This record gives sequence, structure tokens and C-alpha cells, in this order.
Amino acid sequence: MPTLENIVTPALIVDGDMVEANLMAMSTALPGDRLRPHVKAHKCTQLAKRQASHGHIRFCCATVREVVGMAAAGLGTDLLLANETLDASRLAPLEACVTVAVDSLETIEAAARAGGAVEAVLVDVNVGLPRCGCKPEDAGRLADAARSKGLGVRGVMGYEGHVVGLEDRQQRIDQTSQAMEILQRAHADVGGNVISAGGTGTYDINTWATEIQAGSYALMDTAYGKLNLPFRQALWVWSTVISVSDEYAVLDCGLKSLGMDHGNPQIEDGQVWFCSDEHTTFSTQAKVEVGDRMRVTPAHIDPTVAYHEALHVVQNGEIADTWPIDLRGW
Amino acid sequence: MPTLENIVTPALIVDGDMVEANLMAMSTALPGDRLRPHVKAHKCTQLAKRQASHGHIRFCCATVREVVGMAAAGLGTDLLLANETLDASRLAPLEACVTVAVDSLETIEAAARAGGAVEAVLVDVNVGLPRCGCKPEDAGRLADAARSKGLGVRGVMGYEGHVVGLEDRQQRIDQTSQAMEILQRAHADVGGNVISAGGTGTYDINTWATEIQAGSYALMDTAYGKLNLPFRQALWVWSTVISVSDEYAVLDCGLKSLGMDHGNPQIEDGQVWFCSDEHTTFSTQAKVEVGDRMRVTPAHIDPTVAYHEALHVVQNGEIADTWPIDLRGW
Repeated sequence: MPTLENIVTPALIVDGDMVEANLMAMSTALPGDRLRPHVKAHKCTQLAKRQASHGHIRFCCATVREVVGMAAAGLGTDLLLANETLDASRLAPLEACVTVAVDSLETIEAAARAGGAVEAVLVDVNVGLPRCGCKPEDAGRLADAARSKGLGVRGVMGYEGHVVGLEDRQQRIDQTSQAMEILQRAHADVGGNVISAGGTGTYDINTWATEIQAGSYALMDTAYGKLNLPFRQALWVWSTVISVSDEYAVLDCGLKSLGMDHGNPQIEDGQVWFCSDEHTTFSTQAKVEVGDRMRVTPAHIDPTVAYHEALHVVQNGEIADTWPIDLRGW
Repeated sequence: MPTLENIVTPALIVDGDMVEANLMAMSTALPGDRLRPHVKAHKCTQLAKRQASHGHIRFCCATVREVVGMAAAGLGTDLLLANETLDASRLAPLEACVTVAVDSLETIEAAARAGGAVEAVLVDVNVGLPRCGCKPEDAGRLADAARSKGLGVRGVMGYEGHVVGLEDRQQRIDQTSQAMEILQRAHADVGGNVISAGGTGTYDINTWATEIQAGSYALMDTAYGKLNLPFRQALWVWSTVISVSDEYAVLDCGLKSLGMDHGNPQIEDGQVWFCSDEHTTFSTQAKVEVGDRMRVTPAHIDPTVAYHEALHVVQNGEIADTWPIDLRGW
């Protein structure tokens, strides 16, 4: 087992106790089927097994490969591909029970052609984010089309992705309410008993959904860290100081180990200047020496994790376990 | 062999003829040892072999794993780890000839401890970019320290990374001149016959360096595309339209398949609105249907390639070869 002193950096480390605390906080707030954890945030079946041990056994995936990997790991009780795909045939042979999101006749036909494990759909409804999802008024027609193709229709899905990151809680409440009003209207036309929606930023606000699709809560990042949620930062990029100058120092993590769409990462007691492919230049008042190792907090967890091969689980200051990030790719 | 119609998307595709044209243009401008191609841009030994076939057999790497992978692929004639590392011992067992960049006593000691394949160093000098590199006035002292530890000193390295992306050519000329004046001063104190510097944006401007460390020229991206260089875009993210609405459509590539630090990717005849983890929302005047496949041009190639497992080489409209991106990780 590698140690924090000798492990090759950059490496993803997670605080095992904080992950458990986050999973516990979520399972207390949203027990059992009230949460459908989204694996896209961590892409790690070992972590998904920890989520299952807290009673969350039905999962969301964003890619076909995530569904395939979850099924292979024995986590296929009820998998939702919460995304549109024309490639549903890759899901058919799985030892799993798979539901796919659809928002068009083309995606319905792809699901119907797949057969096998793909037994049902959720009609994906646009609730305000300009991305996937049909117009609310088209949802009933699409549900009928799915049924006519022999697919089960479990209900609707509508992700308020334009709301989950708003820092003002009252704004999140107001805008979630508006989004879910749209989704409920569509649900009345669609039928079924599932209303799937929500994310880490609205997990306790979205009481309209029958199940919440949160994922980031398990590991967190600086973006969600601003929202005063009961989940704590549990993942960092572990990095080595490789160069020290008078005014700044340089770490060996950079654009290829950090998702950058939400901006620069953060470090304790210091200021990040900029990131290059394999470097982060920063300044600090603290004394820094070449060879020191530091935790770097990513701004956005999902595209950060997707660069790495493993999560190293730290407990009592030591690497206690290594979990492969086995759901990468498509 | 997969086809462009059935390959799982998102996928990286490269135009085989354009890559060859780019390699040819570079080998005409900087034949043989005048160029030391940087593999960090493509992380692909198959592409490195194409570069070697154009006479560029000495390579730059940014990570220990890149050096290890290049040596394993039989490309270890003269590998420069153009980056500081405390982990040089992983290089010692290689069947290769390895030079490492050093800018401190700690990195010199790490190189000296390694032994084996690690025979020599370049003293890395800061020429204006606040990243690695010693002060010019410290370079001679570090060279002496390296020699006293039994290491060969081949010369100096100094990357004008603050200059290579400037859109105004005259600015690139002026600032490269200033940076190389610093590097030449350090070289006088260091000795050796190598002055290693430069990048794709200064490949024909930097006439002070004995070898140029360009990498992006082989595949290009939108950032370097603004510089009127004789290298053409040769890599795209191949992506599928999975949802179409009245005002926009959605592709199945996003933050996990595109390096985002240089901003949004581009599409032909359209406007990218924003990227999410697995989606790109865009608008276009062209007719778009669910299932259409499109080329997406990344803003920054290096962190884009690092998300993918393979480069699919397209020739005459068909996938003619698939090259593993086998130098990922650290």
C-alpha cells in the first residue's frame, strides 16, 4: 500500500471518515428510495457500494459505460441512465434493470430497439435549463409513443441544473418551485409513479420530486462548498511542491488533474495564481520547501475525478484503501 | 474497426493526412535535432513514432510516466523530462537515455540518487513565466552542484510560455528575444551545448535555442489556430446530437471530454452556448437532427487529449487506425 509520503503525485485522496459522514448525513435526510445517487460525480463502484450500504441502492448514471460498469459490479438493481442516448443497445445484455431518459421519438426508438435490460423510460422534461428535455406540453405524447413501442413509462425526470448552484437559498427555493411546477404539469400527462429531479444544491428543497439525483454530496467541491450544506469537502488532489521561488512556489498538479470550468482550485493558507498542464503556481505566507506535499481543492469535482485512475482513501493519516475510478469513458 | 457512423461518442478523431502535413511542415522548418517534439500534447507513442519517422527522434516529456512509456515503446534514444521531479528514481531502470530538468538542489539530488538511465541534467532557468526555473544568476552554481554529484550537464532550458500564445507576431518576436537573452546569459555560466526552449507559437521565431520543444503543432487547437501558423487543425471531438429543441441542440460531449481552461470549444456554422459534464448546448442556422454526428474543435488540446483513451485516425472519410493514448497519468 502506498503512503502519503511516497505515492506518485498528483493523486486523488479522499478522507474516509468525511465521506462516511457525508453519506450518513444524506441517508438521514433522504433515506432509501428518496435518493438516487448520481455516480457521474465519482465514477467509482467502490464508493457506490458505500452508498448502497447506507440504503441507497438505486443509482443514476450519465453515460452508457457508467451503467455497464455499475451492472458489472453487481449494483444493477435499478439503474437510471439520466441522459439521452441513441446507443441503448449496449445496455440490452446487462444483468440489470435499466431505465433510460427519453425526450424525442429517436431516443424512444433507440430504447425500444435495445430490449433486454432496457425495460422502461422516464420522459425527460425541460424545466428551465437549456439542455436535454422535451417541452412540457410534449411529454404526454412521448409517453404514449413509448408505451406504443412496448416500453414501460415510470414517470418523468426534470433536472433544475440552472438552480442547484445558486448561492442564495431563497432563490434556490423559489426557482426549484417554479421548475417543479412545470415538471408536475408534465407528470400529470405522463403518468407513472416517479418524479426524478434535484441535485446536491436542492436535495432538501426539492420536495416535489419522489427521488433526488444528487451526486456531489459524497465528495464535495469548492463550488458546492459555498452553499452552507451539511456536507464537507472530502476529496483533494494530493500534490508535491517541485519548485520554490522568492514570491511563489509550484505544485505538480495542473490542467490535466483538475477540472477547470469552475475556475482555479484552492489551497489552504495561500493563493493560486494559475494552472498550466502539469503545474499550479501559488503564493503563500507559510514556509514552503521543495518536496512538501499539499492538498489542492478542486473547484468542480466531476471533471476532476474523470482525469484520475483511483481514489486513495485516507484514514488516520494513512492510505487505508485504493478505489479504482472504474466508470470513466463512454 | 469502428466506423464514423457507429463509433461510441464522444471520441477523439484525427485527420491522418493533416497530421502528416503538420509533421512534414515542421520537419521542413526544423529538421532533425532542431526540434525536440513535446509528447505532452498528444500522449501517444504511435503519433510519436510518426514524428520519429520525420527525423525527430529526441523527445520532450512532462511527466515520469510519459518518459517510462516512451522508453517502453522503443523511443528512448534521448528523452528529456522537461519538468522538475523528486521522483527520478522511477526513471533509473529504463532502457533509455534520460536527461531531467533541475532548478534546485533538491531536484539535483533526486536526479543523482536515481542513477541508471538518468545520466544528465539541463538547468531550467526562469525566462519570464512564473513557474519552474531558477534565477538566471543561480544557474552556474546549480550546474556546478550537478557536476559535483556526478551528473552530466548538457546545458540549459528556459520555456517562454508567457510568449508562445501572444497573437501579435511582433510581440512574440520581441518578447522571445528578451527571454532568450536571459537564457543565453545563464548558458554562459552553465556550459554544455544544449539551449532547449520554444513552443509551437515561437517555433520559427526562437533562433537562439539549439532545439525547440514544440508539441501542439501536430494536432493544433483553437488557441494556436489564431496565430496564422502553417499547421492546421487535425483533431476534433467527434460527437452525437442527442437532443434538439427550437432554439438549440445538445451534443454528447462536455466537460469530461474537453479541456476547458481556454474556454468553450467551437463548432462549424454554429455557436456553443455552454458545456456541462456530458453535454454541449449550441445553436446553429443549419438543420440538425437527433443522431447527427459533428466535429467539435477543442480550445486547448493538451487537457482534452488527457481525458481520452484513443485517437482514431481518419483517412478518406473512414477510421483507418486507432492509436492508444498510452502516456496518460503520472
